[in-house]
Amino acid sequence: MTFTPQDPDFAARIAASFARQGALALIGAELQEVQPGEVTIALPIRPDLCQHHGYVHAGIVTTIVDTACGYAAMSLLPAGSTIVSIEFKLNLLAPATGTALVARGQVKRAGRTIIVCTGDVFAQSNDRDERLVATMLGTMMPLADRPELLG
Amino acid sequence: MTFTPQDPDFAARIAASFARQGALALIGAELQEVQPGEVTIALPIRPDLCQHHGYVHAGIVTTIVDTACGYAAMSLLPAGSTIVSIEFKLNLLAPATGTALVARGQVKRAGRTIIVCTGDVFAQSNDRDERLVATMLGTMMPLADRPELLG
Amino acid sequence: MTFTPQDPDFAARIAASFARQGALALIGAELQEVQPGEVTIALPIRPDLCQHHGYVHAGIVTTIVDTACGYAAMSLLPAGSTIVSIEFKLNLLAPATGTALVARGQVKRAGRTIIVCTGDVFAQSNDRDERLVATMLGTMMPLADRPELLG
Amino acid sequence: MTFTPQDPDFAARIAASFARQGALALIGAELQEVQPGEVTIALPIRPDLCQHHGYVHAGIVTTIVDTACGYAAMSLLPAGSTIVSIEFKLNLLAPATGTALVARGQVKRAGRTIIVCTGDVFAQSNDRDERLVATMLGTMMPLADRPELLG
Repeated sequence: MTFTPQDPDFAARIAASFARQGALALIGAELQEVQPGEVTIALPIRPDLCQHHGYVHAGIVTTIVDTACGYAAMSLLPAGSTIVSIEFKLNLLAPATGTALVARGQVKRAGRTIIVCTGDVFAQSNDRDERLVATMLGTMMPLADRPELLG
Repeated sequence: MTFTPQDPDFAARIAASFARQGALALIGAELQEVQPGEVTIALPIRPDLCQHHGYVHAGIVTTIVDTACGYAAMSLLPAGSTIVSIEFKLNLLAPATGTALVARGQVKRAGRTIIVCTGDVFAQSNDRDERLVATMLGTMMPLADRPELLG
Repeated sequence: MTFTPQDPDFAARIAASFARQGALALIGAELQEVQPGEVTIALPIRPDLCQHHGYVHAGIVTTIVDTACGYAAMSLLPAGSTIVSIEFKLNLLAPATGTALVARGQVKRAGRTIIVCTGDVFAQSNDRDERLVATMLGTMMPLADRPELLG
Repeated sequence: MTFTPQDPDFAARIAASFARQGALALIGAELQEVQPGEVTIALPIRPDLCQHHGYVHAGIVTTIVDTACGYAAMSLLPAGSTIVSIEFKLNLLAPATGTALVARGQVKRAGRTIIVCTGDVFAQSNDRDERLVATMLGTMMPLADRPELLG
């Protein structure tokens, strides 16, 4: 699918928004690529991101793929608009281990009031091929800079 | 619903497992209460847990409620068993702001091969009543200490 | 939770809408009870509602519980408004067998733009207690009689 | 993704199972194509499949796409095995109107104990292009002909 952005500065707008997210700095997430309707985020794996089996915690996996989906949706909005996640579902497919995770969020359908996104998370390792470890299907809602509307 | 635990030491086992999770230490989550089939986790709100609107990031909300659901399921298992999350869905209901979040996970149905849990997340504040900010429905799978089986 | 309806005729409005749904007539669903924020639908079990194991098909289970959730949401709207389902998740908990299914949909949180509902489906039988067979978490959107807005 | 079936007669086995499903006969669903890891089901649209807005009911949409996902998973199993749906999430993307729906289920990842599938539903019409109307992400579990194990 090909999307035409309404705001030519969408990539800079997303980078600035990404930089304001304290939670992303805490876990060490990196904005890797921004295309219209598709955003990629990388996360170097650290022990303090893991659960008791030594895999990255499902909630941390969620953090990067929900963010990738949200920005994929935001890339298609006019300047001055923002996005809130209404809901998402995540399936865990394999242990999230290795050197880094890469989350790719994509717009599946952009309606006027709802944007539906899919996201895949891959685990990279020095000694094996990239592996799909999680997949998301989520619902985003555009807001004209009024996130309080959600309530 | 009332559940009878198979392992009388379930609470100590869960506390020990909780303490081994680096991701929970990173975000400052606290194990608040462990009952058979129900676990409560608290999270003091800090700026470095938030996204760009100043709300706790949906992925961090997911981290505590997925953990609460997982331990609620684990509380019903025999000693030596563990739990993996197969999948979950989270609905965001209101901005996660205030002084702390409290996530309560509960077993909805414990089958032999699948345990289904629900979780609610509440936001506490000094100047208003506790508020429901998110709700989860998730699927957990018991493993006899062999998480690699999931793959 | 207690809800106050905006339209005193909500029950009659829902009954009229229910009667216009061809799919509900096809499967034999019956509107059983309508309260503010809570609707119950019954479905006598017939062989032509089942899959190859002799259980009611998950899609037919979905039909009654999605409908119950949608009308639970609609019960809180002003006259002239309608509801569309944005998305839902259903967990199948036990085989849907017996004499009848009963689906109960409830509003979990009614926001201005989004209404989140939960639904439970029970199976009734002559020779055992009522049994929980499925549970739903879904997202509904109120429309002022303009369902085409969803697109 | 390419899958190698374990049972060379998977297509005949699925066709026989499909024919035993009363619910699929009731709604008029047709098995259109069976490939390893991918199954397509068609549904001519009739008024008695619709809700009050004249769109195919979300539960009927679910019926065909859950079935397509289940058989996509079953196509990879050895003879004598069957599949149960553990859970699924469906997003409704556009009104399900036109002459027919086509549901395509695909295996996303086939693990030993869990098979995760995605499904898309398209609406066909004489006067416009095929349109994506719904998308599913679901979790299936293989059973060695013992569906009662789920409980």
